[in-house]
Amino acid sequence: MSEQEYRVEHDTMGEVRVPVDALWRAQTQRAVENFPISGRGLERAQIRALGLLKAAAARVNARLGVLDADLASAIAAAADEVAAGRWDEHFPVDVFQTGSGTSSNMNANEVIATLATRALSSDVHPNDHVNASQSSNDTFPTTLRVAATEAVVTDVVPALEHLLGVLESRAAEWADLVKSGRTHLMDAVPITLGQEAGAWASQVRYSVERLRASVPRLAELPIGGTAVGSGLNAPEGFGTAVAAELATATGLPLTEARDHFEAQATQDGVVEISGQLRASAVALFKIANDLRWLGSGPRTGLGELALPDLQPGSSIMPGKVNPVISEATMMVVAQVIGNDATVAFAGSQGNFQLNVMLPVIARNVLESSRLLAAVARLLADKVLVGTEPVADQMREYAESSPSIVTPLNRYIGYEEAASIAKQSLKERKTIREVVLERGHVPGKLTEEQLDAALDVLHMARGGR
Amino acid sequence: MSEQEYRVEHDTMGEVRVPVDALWRAQTQRAVENFPISGRGLERAQIRALGLLKAAAARVNARLGVLDADLASAIAAAADEVAAGRWDEHFPVDVFQTGSGTSSNMNANEVIATLATRALSSDVHPNDHVNASQSSNDTFPTTLRVAATEAVVTDVVPALEHLLGVLESRAAEWADLVKSGRTHLMDAVPITLGQEAGAWASQVRYSVERLRASVPRLAELPIGGTAVGSGLNAPEGFGTAVAAELATATGLPLTEARDHFEAQATQDGVVEISGQLRASAVALFKIANDLRWLGSGPRTGLGELALPDLQPGSSIMPGKVNPVISEATMMVVAQVIGNDATVAFAGSQGNFQLNVMLPVIARNVLESSRLLAAVARLLADKVLVGTEPVADQMREYAESSPSIVTPLNRYIGYEEAASIAKQSLKERKTIREVVLERGHVPGKLTEEQLDAALDVLHMARGGR
Amino acid sequence: MSEQEYRVEHDTMGEVRVPVDALWRAQTQRAVENFPISGRGLERAQIRALGLLKAAAARVNARLGVLDADLASAIAAAADEVAAGRWDEHFPVDVFQTGSGTSSNMNANEVIATLATRALSSDVHPNDHVNASQSSNDTFPTTLRVAATEAVVTDVVPALEHLLGVLESRAAEWADLVKSGRTHLMDAVPITLGQEAGAWASQVRYSVERLRASVPRLAELPIGGTAVGSGLNAPEGFGTAVAAELATATGLPLTEARDHFEAQATQDGVVEISGQLRASAVALFKIANDLRWLGSGPRTGLGELALPDLQPGSSIMPGKVNPVISEATMMVVAQVIGNDATVAFAGSQGNFQLNVMLPVIARNVLESSRLLAAVARLLADKVLVGTEPVADQMREYAESSPSIVTPLNRYIGYEEAASIAKQSLKERKTIREVVLERGHVPGKLTEEQLDAALDVLHMARGGR
Amino acid sequence: MSEQEYRVEHDTMGEVRVPVDALWRAQTQRAVENFPISGRGLERAQIRALGLLKAAAARVNARLGVLDADLASAIAAAADEVAAGRWDEHFPVDVFQTGSGTSSNMNANEVIATLATRALSSDVHPNDHVNASQSSNDTFPTTLRVAATEAVVTDVVPALEHLLGVLESRAAEWADLVKSGRTHLMDAVPITLGQEAGAWASQVRYSVERLRASVPRLAELPIGGTAVGSGLNAPEGFGTAVAAELATATGLPLTEARDHFEAQATQDGVVEISGQLRASAVALFKIANDLRWLGSGPRTGLGELALPDLQPGSSIMPGKVNPVISEATMMVVAQVIGNDATVAFAGSQGNFQLNVMLPVIARNVLESSRLLAAVARLLADKVLVGTEPVADQMREYAESSPSIVTPLNRYIGYEEAASIAKQSLKERKTIREVVLERGHVPGKLTEEQLDAALDVLHMARGGR
Repeated sequence: MSEQEYRVEHDTMGEVRVPVDALWRAQTQRAVENFPISGRGLERAQIRALGLLKAAAARVNARLGVLDADLASAIAAAADEVAAGRWDEHFPVDVFQTGSGTSSNMNANEVIATLATRALSSDVHPNDHVNASQSSNDTFPTTLRVAATEAVVTDVVPALEHLLGVLESRAAEWADLVKSGRTHLMDAVPITLGQEAGAWASQVRYSVERLRASVPRLAELPIGGTAVGSGLNAPEGFGTAVAAELATATGLPLTEARDHFEAQATQDGVVEISGQLRASAVALFKIANDLRWLGSGPRTGLGELALPDLQPGSSIMPGKVNPVISEATMMVVAQVIGNDATVAFAGSQGNFQLNVMLPVIARNVLESSRLLAAVARLLADKVLVGTEPVADQMREYAESSPSIVTPLNRYIGYEEAASIAKQSLKERKTIREVVLERGHVPGKLTEEQLDAALDVLHMARGGR
Repeated sequence: MSEQEYRVEHDTMGEVRVPVDALWRAQTQRAVENFPISGRGLERAQIRALGLLKAAAARVNARLGVLDADLASAIAAAADEVAAGRWDEHFPVDVFQTGSGTSSNMNANEVIATLATRALSSDVHPNDHVNASQSSNDTFPTTLRVAATEAVVTDVVPALEHLLGVLESRAAEWADLVKSGRTHLMDAVPITLGQEAGAWASQVRYSVERLRASVPRLAELPIGGTAVGSGLNAPEGFGTAVAAELATATGLPLTEARDHFEAQATQDGVVEISGQLRASAVALFKIANDLRWLGSGPRTGLGELALPDLQPGSSIMPGKVNPVISEATMMVVAQVIGNDATVAFAGSQGNFQLNVMLPVIARNVLESSRLLAAVARLLADKVLVGTEPVADQMREYAESSPSIVTPLNRYIGYEEAASIAKQSLKERKTIREVVLERGHVPGKLTEEQLDAALDVLHMARGGR
Repeated sequence: MSEQEYRVEHDTMGEVRVPVDALWRAQTQRAVENFPISGRGLERAQIRALGLLKAAAARVNARLGVLDADLASAIAAAADEVAAGRWDEHFPVDVFQTGSGTSSNMNANEVIATLATRALSSDVHPNDHVNASQSSNDTFPTTLRVAATEAVVTDVVPALEHLLGVLESRAAEWADLVKSGRTHLMDAVPITLGQEAGAWASQVRYSVERLRASVPRLAELPIGGTAVGSGLNAPEGFGTAVAAELATATGLPLTEARDHFEAQATQDGVVEISGQLRASAVALFKIANDLRWLGSGPRTGLGELALPDLQPGSSIMPGKVNPVISEATMMVVAQVIGNDATVAFAGSQGNFQLNVMLPVIARNVLESSRLLAAVARLLADKVLVGTEPVADQMREYAESSPSIVTPLNRYIGYEEAASIAKQSLKERKTIREVVLERGHVPGKLTEEQLDAALDVLHMARGGR
Repeated sequence: MSEQEYRVEHDTMGEVRVPVDALWRAQTQRAVENFPISGRGLERAQIRALGLLKAAAARVNARLGVLDADLASAIAAAADEVAAGRWDEHFPVDVFQTGSGTSSNMNANEVIATLATRALSSDVHPNDHVNASQSSNDTFPTTLRVAATEAVVTDVVPALEHLLGVLESRAAEWADLVKSGRTHLMDAVPITLGQEAGAWASQVRYSVERLRASVPRLAELPIGGTAVGSGLNAPEGFGTAVAAELATATGLPLTEARDHFEAQATQDGVVEISGQLRASAVALFKIANDLRWLGSGPRTGLGELALPDLQPGSSIMPGKVNPVISEATMMVVAQVIGNDATVAFAGSQGNFQLNVMLPVIARNVLESSRLLAAVARLLADKVLVGTEPVADQMREYAESSPSIVTPLNRYIGYEEAASIAKQSLKERKTIREVVLERGHVPGKLTEEQLDAALDVLHMARGGR
């Protein structure tokens, strides 16, 4: 800070030099100096939640007689600006900091106190006023819950629903395109591309269901518990009222924690949602991976789908185009799996009345949400909307798969059918040829039955 | 097999020598020889599910005219014996095998065919009869779903509910035992032991909720989809009927898969439940860890709880007793976290119409369930039931914590309170002494207010 | 135990009923009753190490005057039988037990004491004699280190070297088989199958290197540190001498821990080897996955390799054969990844003078070693030895890949080359045809240069 | 881009609008539009490596006659500026992009081409000139290897060595401070604080060893392999020369890959180093965790260490100070564990000639390195340097631990010693009192022997 102008602030530990233009004060500055670790602060979504919470708390403090109306109003106004993103550059504390997030809570308290002080022209205290009726131990995990609920409900779920809609629509279009099924990567009995895309759609539909099923436990807010869950120094009803304010302000299904001691001692509800995000990511991996395999080639791969060309694929091999969105999606899934491992580890490490791995939990669950929402939309809009089936290739595969002998089991038994399949492969004959050659028609079945049995689209529909 | 007597069996690939007393046949034997990997087969719960499924399928096959009644009845009787565990030693195939579990499905088909053949004195075919209307690709994941649903619903959840009951009862008994809260491992404001144990109870309650919330997606059964989901070679309504049979037979909320293609192509529903088991495990870690820390000492630790003595703790240090159930629980959690990583990885690796990591998924989710159920009961019965609080130690801690200055914030402000706490620590005086010494009574508050403010049990109840 | 005959044993906590035929005594029995968790005990490799260690300790105790020669000799003889596997059924303690493994150490002490008592016809005490100069806190992690070192050095590394040998030999055979490279799953410039198999060989070679590089830290033995690392109650030189005995007995590069306090407080060296096993598993995943993809088809996949037929692949689709060893390998990798997550988690949870997650660490690292060694051999012997290249298919792919335009960059520039590749694909013409059609010969290059540039085997060798 | 001025660029797929001031061109711009995912680009360390590599490649291209000297020189000069960080804002491509990193390689090619074009006033082509003799498939993984090697060798290892030095020095200062050992969190026999800190030092020393042991496999560079490993379009010796240039430029032990096919098809060497970083992180977790526990209190914890006061700990509890650097360290470890899971997953997902999860692998291994280096230094400088032992508390604990009966085993046997320990605890007498009361002196040992046996510092030194 040698060349920079600074001012002197103090806190309970003494004096600190703070950059002269900073809205923050002593405790934020100490944290800046204590934690030169990752170079990154909280996620925007959590700063927003800090602003929303401080505004709601100020309003409730006024209503319950803790703060006078003008003071509360000035705090709320400043906090709303923080929520809106106007002062993000005044949140310099590294995400790897004290495990309770106290430094970031104090950062919010200090910035808001400074702004409110300016507005009121009278001293607003970060602890006694902005943080009134609160503790880092209830506010910080509350912002984690608010931000994560918002991320899931307004970001991830709608993005998945968008992808779901596109998948359902493509599945409907592709309902009659017959192709070979593949199990163990090996030729299997026929399906339609519509059935295949429909399975992807179902995966996404289930992902939406599972996220929704876990939101109730995620959306419980610790606010009102203050230091250890008992609510010491907060007025009766504070938590209930702030949770209601936040629910109204955001439109999210936020509720007060049923057990404030649990809500601060653990973050099990966040571990749970992280697991659900991971399950959803795993679903996207399958979809993205199937897409790139079906689009592989054009000459040496499966070549069943033509994925949209988005960019030149190689700096050396001219004309090459690669399934880049699938790859980006799969990398996002790899990241989400790792982020989730971090969350589970951190979630297990609480002791007594507080889990002190909160900032790293917040970072990971919020990043995972952002990434998943982004790639779900890209898969839909940049890949699926523009994907074209290579119908001839599909039908050719379907008809050449030796597994189309399967419907004959009922007429000739599994073992004879296996023998036919093997001869067909070895001698490069069709199943029909071998069946006829072996004299099963009309001995075991009629020609009409053979035709019906070997109709690949009929087969894809279950042969019924 | 040199010294052993054997018989010759055959399958579509030729002849195989099988131990003369084995109920299994050629395909099982090939698998035994192909997969000498872990030395362990399927979990008992999955063999049971194989038996239940084969019996249900036989009954439905009879009803729908696929098999004649006597044959179906013989198959069902044999399958019921398999379900009951009578023939477990005839399931020798390693869990690390073909990724579809075909070898284990054929193992079941062969054992049941042999038993039914004996009963009927006429040939029962493993594929054409026992496996009629089925494929490994729908049966094996169905047994995974049945076994996992049963494990969660009848094993894990009741064990957690048992633990919950014990925790709630101890929490009620301990409602008035005041102690110091601890955040960041550092002295904090008071709580009661009842509040602390109540938070553990809430963690377990939420675990039950989260497992139940995910059962619907777990309990969807692929049966009826046969090879690729289309149901080829199965009669109309087969899957619905078998799912209903299984639901009745087990009392479990089993349903037919909404999308058979999805149900075979992915195991997302199992990845989800694995994540929920992990979140529940993470909850148990906190409880077990808190317990051992609160019981640490007796002389050099926290010494707030006397955990039951279960066994001598050291082979060298006489008289030592250790928190062994906590440790076993924490190791189980470590295992569940790893098993879950395996499930998520395996769940992501499906291609096209089938996930071929099924046996490893089954192994891990079923083992995790068994382990969690076991330690939840042990924690309840061997630890919590017999734990005795050391009430004097708790109260002493509560009263010596400098954080009990916190309720004075409202009278004297956060900064003066901090100064008092520091002086108290430095000079080894009580908070009361320093407050009086500084003349805040009656300047800032009355003696009655000071008494009320410094009452630790009152504080634990939020000071209200 | 109601129907069973039992005898009464005692320990420092009182009396215990023990099955009359059991070699174990009171502390083992308590553990059996305390830990009904997984139903599985220690890995055989660790029971073996317990036997080896107790024998070595007895011999050293005799040499250093702690035990008289006859007593030591009887203990060593009994311990050798334990090492050899003769008494495995007398090790009934669950692997999920006290985190120090004290119950299993006492199990060994008790079984050996009983056997030695019988041999000597005089009382041998589990603690005072068999455990002399030892503590569970140094013995149990020593057996973990011995067993893991043996697993890596005599099981995993030789299995990988066997696989390496087969891969090198196949790579040499396949040196001239040209095929299309694939990057992003898309057609790329040519390679040879020998180069591809050579890369797999290199992966395995590096795996051997990385395991060897970590053995020195794994092979450090805590023995000699007794309760907390200080060696209290052990004679000077005890640890050094026992480590030397064990190194001689096993032929392994075992050494005494450089810092006994570290060796008991942490298991970082095991976390390290677990990571190296995982990296090796990741290598096998790539190989197994490539093999099954190259063997996919026969009609709807890549069809470049014919993998050996090992067993019928489907219970419903006749004639289907699947890449079952690849799948088993990939499931093993999934398990190793999970096991490793368990080890890392458990490794992080030590406190003060002891890590008390030892049995779960041991279980996972030893199982991972067993599984990897098994599948490395199966991949070699059941897959690679019998795999046959489909040379025609490979060459056809190589020649049809539009990326073979790449060597023309130097003559015509990347952008014109890209344009040619696109036209070739669109109009289904060969690269040569388009180049000639555009008049680049002889404008930009001669016909000889064109021939040389488009020679796919030449290209695979770098075009040089 | 509606309000912004733009220019039109083209590539092989057509025209693209690029911001007018951007140094990048068409392919970078396509990638910016294709990948709006995380909002973050490559790590600075990898942009640096891209610059270093492009400069080295240009020099070697000149030397081998591929580029003329002036052109190469202009490219190298521009690339050096990129390496130095001057143009970071011109690297806008998201880290979640094409899995080969082609977009970032092209970004570097385009930026450097633009800069070199300006310098030379003649057209420099991104592919034909800047990327000459290279492919994304060898350059991008080369930059990953260079950046990761540099991070480990010049960042992580020196930071760990700094921490090691501080730990060794504190351990030496604390060599005679006796305290109680703790195993299972329970009272154990005495140690010294020097021994305890020495074990932490050993953990760090081993971490340095393990990182160094893996650098040789990490530091192998794919450069020279071009598209698939064959080196097509690169001159003989190109890879060797570029690796040598880079080794010289950086002082790092960089070498050419022994097998270029392996070096592009897999990133096993990075998976390995990630595992080693994780093992080192696990070591730091133990140290940070022990520190915060030993410093817990001041009144309700262990209170053996006074950690430096770095910032006010609570927004509500006045005077509270928390172990914030320990917490930040433990959160970093949680992140490293998750990042490592991502790397292992991604490392397993390569197919055929290329792993296409490169950017996410790079991101995670580089971030883990940065974070670990930062907290290792903070632990040393902000915690260990200023930590003060509370010697009286330590000695009091040491003398009150019932485990100090252990040295009496040899005189009175384990069982009598256990009985004494229990009586001592129950009756709150010292071990000495009970021993004397039971008349063991002089029956079993002399008073001098008793004194020696019960000397806690003597005990900490092994009683020898």
